Amino acid sequence: MATHPLEEILHPRAIAVVGASDSGGRGSGFFAPLIELGYEGQLYPVNPKYTEVMGIKAYPSVKDIPGVVDYVISSVPASQVLSMMADCAEKGVKAVHLYTARFSETGRKEAADLEMEILNQAKKAGIRLIGPNCMGLYYPGERISFSEGMPRESGPVGLASQSGSAIHEIVDLAVQRGLYFSKAISYGNAIDFNESDYLEYFAQDPNTEMVLMYIEGVRDGKRFYDALHHTTASKPVIIVKGGRGQSGTRATASHTASLAGSMDIWETVVRQAGAVSVRHPGELIDVAAAFHFLPPIIGRKVGVAGGAGGSSVLAADLCEEAGLDVIPLPMEIREEMKAQGSPIWDWIGNPADMSIRIDRSWDVGDMLKIMAGNPNFDLLITFIRGHFHGDHGKVSAETFLKQYRLNELGNKPLLAVMEEHRLGGNGDDEQAWVQELMEEVKVGLMAAGVPFYPNIEQAAEAGSKLIDYYQRRESR
Amino acid sequence: MATHPLEEILHPRAIAVVGASDSGGRGSGFFAPLIELGYEGQLYPVNPKYTEVMGIKAYPSVKDIPGVVDYVISSVPASQVLSMMADCAEKGVKAVHLYTARFSETGRKEAADLEMEILNQAKKAGIRLIGPNCMGLYYPGERISFSEGMPRESGPVGLASQSGSAIHEIVDLAVQRGLYFSKAISYGNAIDFNESDYLEYFAQDPNTEMVLMYIEGVRDGKRFYDALHHTTASKPVIIVKGGRGQSGTRATASHTASLAGSMDIWETVVRQAGAVSVRHPGELIDVAAAFHFLPPIIGRKVGVAGGAGGSSVLAADLCEEAGLDVIPLPMEIREEMKAQGSPIWDWIGNPADMSIRIDRSWDVGDMLKIMAGNPNFDLLITFIRGHFHGDHGKVSAETFLKQYRLNELGNKPLLAVMEEHRLGGNGDDEQAWVQELMEEVKVGLMAAGVPFYPNIEQAAEAGSKLIDYYQRRESR
Repeated sequence: MATHPLEEILHPRAIAVVGASDSGGRGSGFFAPLIELGYEGQLYPVNPKYTEVMGIKAYPSVKDIPGVVDYVISSVPASQVLSMMADCAEKGVKAVHLYTARFSETGRKEAADLEMEILNQAKKAGIRLIGPNCMGLYYPGERISFSEGMPRESGPVGLASQSGSAIHEIVDLAVQRGLYFSKAISYGNAIDFNESDYLEYFAQDPNTEMVLMYIEGVRDGKRFYDALHHTTASKPVIIVKGGRGQSGTRATASHTASLAGSMDIWETVVRQAGAVSVRHPGELIDVAAAFHFLPPIIGRKVGVAGGAGGSSVLAADLCEEAGLDVIPLPMEIREEMKAQGSPIWDWIGNPADMSIRIDRSWDVGDMLKIMAGNPNFDLLITFIRGHFHGDHGKVSAETFLKQYRLNELGNKPLLAVMEEHRLGGNGDDEQAWVQELMEEVKVGLMAAGVPFYPNIEQAAEAGSKLIDYYQRRESR
Repeated sequence: MATHPLEEILHPRAIAVVGASDSGGRGSGFFAPLIELGYEGQLYPVNPKYTEVMGIKAYPSVKDIPGVVDYVISSVPASQVLSMMADCAEKGVKAVHLYTARFSETGRKEAADLEMEILNQAKKAGIRLIGPNCMGLYYPGERISFSEGMPRESGPVGLASQSGSAIHEIVDLAVQRGLYFSKAISYGNAIDFNESDYLEYFAQDPNTEMVLMYIEGVRDGKRFYDALHHTTASKPVIIVKGGRGQSGTRATASHTASLAGSMDIWETVVRQAGAVSVRHPGELIDVAAAFHFLPPIIGRKVGVAGGAGGSSVLAADLCEEAGLDVIPLPMEIREEMKAQGSPIWDWIGNPADMSIRIDRSWDVGDMLKIMAGNPNFDLLITFIRGHFHGDHGKVSAETFLKQYRLNELGNKPLLAVMEEHRLGGNGDDEQAWVQELMEEVKVGLMAAGVPFYPNIEQAAEAGSKLIDYYQRRESR
């Protein structure tokens, strides 16, 4: 198989940042992160106004740089791009990331014409373009980033986002849920590489196990469908479509000059291609966390344990509304509970309302364990709340998590609901401590392969979308 | 108009807590909060095992108490309720709150028979019952509470919840959004006072401006419809229905012995009666915050400002999907921007993507102000993010909020979106400080009459449900 064209530009020996400066604007915004993350190739600031930037020798133009330059990041104004590109052509640059914006997305003809001229110039010179009007590349493995404060850790998630603000939002949310990236690329107006290129790249990338996308418009529908259908056979693809309605479509035009198209057709295409459609970055990360931590799940029968009365009733409603099947508590579980002397064997149900316990002898962990051992359940959901104190004062995260008996649940998939406002604690000190404990509990849950959600609705919907994917994949 | 029967029991001269103890269980759980909140009437612990509880003289039974007793809280086991009620009858008690549970909700015939026997006994003795199987009364004005840590502040919100865990959840969420309660009542199995009584009470209560309800089952559909229709003519009523699907209906039976009924009929009834239906406590409080802070809104035309590119596109989609009308930016606003020299007058839209600004001369506050002054907009939504630093270091909440020009928006209703994960800050210290600043910003927003939401979806849906209510009310 031929090397993917993106693969050829993602390992640059040297990067030049044109428009680099110490000023604190986007010029330093593209230079500083490369230094922060420790990019190991040659790094050249280009700016005729400076002799050095952040202590590194600066050059007036790309063609003045002595060594090879494979990859150029442009933050110069739109009016300077053609001459900068000519320098790049002379220098033999392979790829240019155009952060530079104010092209077709302005709705102005002369700006759209300039964009087209840049593309033609790049094609003649054999230069590939990322953008324009985008944040470009975050590739922790190569220590390349477009912003300071991005994680150094790599992970199995590939992300292509037409929007730069969306890519920041998605990465921020992901990290809070234990998800890290192989590469994340913001690609803006997509005049050269487009959504299908990025998708095809991630499809063949051995370091990417799932693909997340934020898309405003598709350049070539047939090609995108084929790429999607091909990718979803081996990896989940989860997509936020921006510009779903009339007003959003207007907004995509002024954002990335995208023609958003009909949402009905979009939903049909995504579903037929086996991908997962979500509505916003929060939902994207909810579903991604499910795919990251859980094994494939084909059935929809869910067991819920650990809520109180009202939350158990609403858990049943919200799971059912999300498309899960909240089955009655299987008789063999009742019989086992009866045999073990539980006084609530005939009263407790699914969801298992733990507030009706008469004593502490039958706890949430017992319920989860017996549900996990029962073949009727395809997945489980539990509420994280309750006992922060043991016999000897405040408990550790390890002791806290023991009540859920996570290591006794076998391979049964489990999602956790952590309702922050219900964690309790009396007074500010106690609340601060509970908060700290819960941060450690989250780490413990992730280590145990349990994704966590801020409420039952989000947990149930994420689980259901994961099942949608595996059911469709199995029926291909 | 006759005094409402609930009004007659809500101002007790003396309260006895039967089953009170120092043990830390629910016995002290009902006694300690009355002391904590400073109940000013006579307070009597009743428990034959103690001579005093929390330093207050205890009595072996209600009939041993020397003075009058108007209100009794029962946390004795179900088997002791009949004899306790006989004591109450002898003592002339007006009302008993039965925290005591394990009646019809267990699904056991003998428990349901006992519940009926208690009701008959109460009727003969002229004693009114709250419950059984519930948390009872929180009435900050009378310093009555069922749990420690409840707010001392009163507010305009009335709450009746069939579930005790739901009432805790709703109050917790409400306080975080600046909502306080006139009274909140958890009423469980509702064998005497039921949902219609509580609703009718709040309808006539001059201290209640909006009514929130969590309901699992309705005892008398016709009466409830009439009460709802009557109440919504003057006050919004927002209802979470627990037991919407098959599994939730099973769960309500074992929780409060409620027959949940058909959801289709429920939605129709609620809508025709002019009330607002929501799916869970989080949504309940989102909508309640809108009603609390915003004036009546009849139209659906929304202006959105302050997001970046991707978030503006998705804001348009999510507002439209919530039923709001994201109109194109009115031409007179473009002309005004052009007259003021803004270089983006022909490019910016609604939602107004503030990331396309060329300089700082046209800020989110300018956009909000010009939208507020335009009669085409019925409501506005803004994103809270951005500039935490001024020319002289970190800004105060007051300075931070100045960028939104809240005092220059006239009467135009505004909702704020505060996406916690997008607030930024580099490093732990900065993040902690931004967090603190945002808590102060929330206080500032509430003082300015601006409800805040964790994302655009929730803001848009809350606004839309508020408009639903006022539109239906206007068309009566």
